[in-house]
Amino acid sequence: MKILVLNAGSSSIKYQLFEMPEKNVLLAGSVEKIGEASSLVNHKIYQQDGTEKKHEENGVISGHSDALKRIFSLLLDAEWGVIREAKEISAVGHRVVHGGEKFSKPTLLSSEVLEELRKISYLAPLHNPANIRGIEVALEIFPDSVQVAVFDTAFHQSMPDYAFRYAIPERFYRENGLRAYGFHGTSHQYVSREAARFLSIDESRFNAISVHLGNGCSITAISNGISVDTSMGLTPLGGLIMGTRSGDIDPSLILFLEKHLNMTPEQVDKLLNKESGLKGLAGSNDLREVIDRYQHQDPAAQLAVEMYVYRIKKYIGAYAATLGRLDALIFTAGVGENSAFIREKVCQGLEMLGIELDQDLNTAAVRETRALESASGKVKILVVPTNEELEIALQTYPLLANQ
Amino acid sequence: MKILVLNAGSSSIKYQLFEMPEKNVLLAGSVEKIGEASSLVNHKIYQQDGTEKKHEENGVISGHSDALKRIFSLLLDAEWGVIREAKEISAVGHRVVHGGEKFSKPTLLSSEVLEELRKISYLAPLHNPANIRGIEVALEIFPDSVQVAVFDTAFHQSMPDYAFRYAIPERFYRENGLRAYGFHGTSHQYVSREAARFLSIDESRFNAISVHLGNGCSITAISNGISVDTSMGLTPLGGLIMGTRSGDIDPSLILFLEKHLNMTPEQVDKLLNKESGLKGLAGSNDLREVIDRYQHQDPAAQLAVEMYVYRIKKYIGAYAATLGRLDALIFTAGVGENSAFIREKVCQGLEMLGIELDQDLNTAAVRETRALESASGKVKILVVPTNEELEIALQTYPLLANQ
Repeated sequence: MKILVLNAGSSSIKYQLFEMPEKNVLLAGSVEKIGEASSLVNHKIYQQDGTEKKHEENGVISGHSDALKRIFSLLLDAEWGVIREAKEISAVGHRVVHGGEKFSKPTLLSSEVLEELRKISYLAPLHNPANIRGIEVALEIFPDSVQVAVFDTAFHQSMPDYAFRYAIPERFYRENGLRAYGFHGTSHQYVSREAARFLSIDESRFNAISVHLGNGCSITAISNGISVDTSMGLTPLGGLIMGTRSGDIDPSLILFLEKHLNMTPEQVDKLLNKESGLKGLAGSNDLREVIDRYQHQDPAAQLAVEMYVYRIKKYIGAYAATLGRLDALIFTAGVGENSAFIREKVCQGLEMLGIELDQDLNTAAVRETRALESASGKVKILVVPTNEELEIALQTYPLLANQ
Repeated sequence: MKILVLNAGSSSIKYQLFEMPEKNVLLAGSVEKIGEASSLVNHKIYQQDGTEKKHEENGVISGHSDALKRIFSLLLDAEWGVIREAKEISAVGHRVVHGGEKFSKPTLLSSEVLEELRKISYLAPLHNPANIRGIEVALEIFPDSVQVAVFDTAFHQSMPDYAFRYAIPERFYRENGLRAYGFHGTSHQYVSREAARFLSIDESRFNAISVHLGNGCSITAISNGISVDTSMGLTPLGGLIMGTRSGDIDPSLILFLEKHLNMTPEQVDKLLNKESGLKGLAGSNDLREVIDRYQHQDPAAQLAVEMYVYRIKKYIGAYAATLGRLDALIFTAGVGENSAFIREKVCQGLEMLGIELDQDLNTAAVRETRALESASGKVKILVVPTNEELEIALQTYPLLANQ
């Protein structure tokens, strides 16, 4: 059976079609610049002989409805598609960024669920409204398919209260939902389960730290297979240093910017989310470029890399200490999977925690789950390529079986 | 020779008079509620036979000048004093909260130094102006004494840039001095040196984590005797959970309070500094009371204590990992010195770092520097009673000798 995975952003929709339970990707693509003068469609079909065929087109796609209709027509296309009618799509799995405290599991979509999602949209005003729009359109186009929401926050709903609460008066939690939710949950969950499988450790006894380093960066403490702490909080701003986000800062810094430099909350928001992180420190949010300049002794790039790495090390130390026992350190996402340089700098000096990297294993160019620790290292060090789309399909599949 | 140590706050001046280099306290006291309807003077003289004599008085003391004059008259008093004229005070050591990046050492006061202190007062608007006022008055009353400023930030000036910078655009650091400074430096420095002495470890090879838990709380990573990271940042708001301060929070929380709840920066400032921390979580900033309620199963108190302890554990893990080798974990200040309960909860589960507490040693009622680790613990665990006033006298003394 076929499961379509949709990730609807404010101006883009990404999609992948899986054959389940075989986990085969049949086709994948994206519609970008929705609503702009010229939108861009990228579409790729994976053929049975193992080769890929790519299709690109430009055109005017004015909204999410048009975008999803175009995707649907590609799915039906004789050359570029694999189905003949909508009901061949058994299920649609939707990525939803924020599930609040209500949703800790993949959830069958209904008008009640959509209503709940609208209610908590204030917690993720940049993401949830677009996710909801994608769901509404998909319900029209695929009326016979099972529709499931998979939440970026869900995996972290197992955090204990002493990890997710902030030390501010309780009413802000009770009345406004102000607490840490954490994000990238689908990725952390996928790589954590993959790592346990790879190591043949029972997931329910698996202690790990997963380090997701992409455009956004977050790190999660996993105890007995469940998330017990994570670096992102109320929004994806806090924690690690990212491409354009500051990560953790002293809260008084914001008050200083407002009181002494007369910045508005909107200006501070933009500063910390769009102009900070690597971009703020080194002028570029592209870590590869910053590393290249680091290696050419550019002082701003050197500071940016040192800060980026130091922040990750501090979180690894904090989580290792509170987990009490650490089976594995997992690197994933663009930078985590591909930058041997960053992995080496992160692990350097963490021998006290039993973390010892093998240089040759670290620099080997292999694109699959693999171990990097040295023979004497007590903690397994893994690279696990993340696959959020597959995880959404995997989480959608059981709900389909129960229909 | 006699060194007077002064700590001038906005509505109080605390003082101690030391005989140096013997380190004997001759007298100590405070003037409180300066400028209020009825001010309060507490004065204590330590007699040669080891006994103490206490004097209390109420009266109208309208400003710092009157307060210091009253202290001076007590120093001269036949019954309550120990000197006959001002010039018997060889030096006055002043506690100054913020030294910015300019002052990393105890500094002889001059009009140039005072001018510099005024320039950086914007970094500590609640503290530095009062400290400066105390200095100005002391310069008048003790014109022949050497006057020295000892900074709360100075010990942390050794932090590397990757630890003290925030991941925001560089101009905010260059133009506005926005970086982590750290506080409680005088205390961290004192207990770190005391601990190295107690353990007979060369200070220049001593790696430690010092946990200062009082009304304010902070934790410092000490590598080879110098501060390399600390939990307080631009102001004393960040880091650990304190009596009324939140410590670390997701920066987006402030923006949420402002944008969705229409709070002003001033209101948020007050919320996070005066109404958060233990008070915000459990309704009281008195940890003893919160612990008592914890032990009577009060849920808010239990959460507050768990959060307070968890935050400390995370910092210990982060600093232990980045230090690479940990010789000692040091507890100090009111809570750190006196609460065996908090020390026990903090150390629980940190065996991975070599931290193992001995229950009997932990609960022994001894008021001096002592070790608490179990025989199998690799890391020394110490209680070191802090003494910021003595540290100020000790740092003032060498400058006097050089005159």
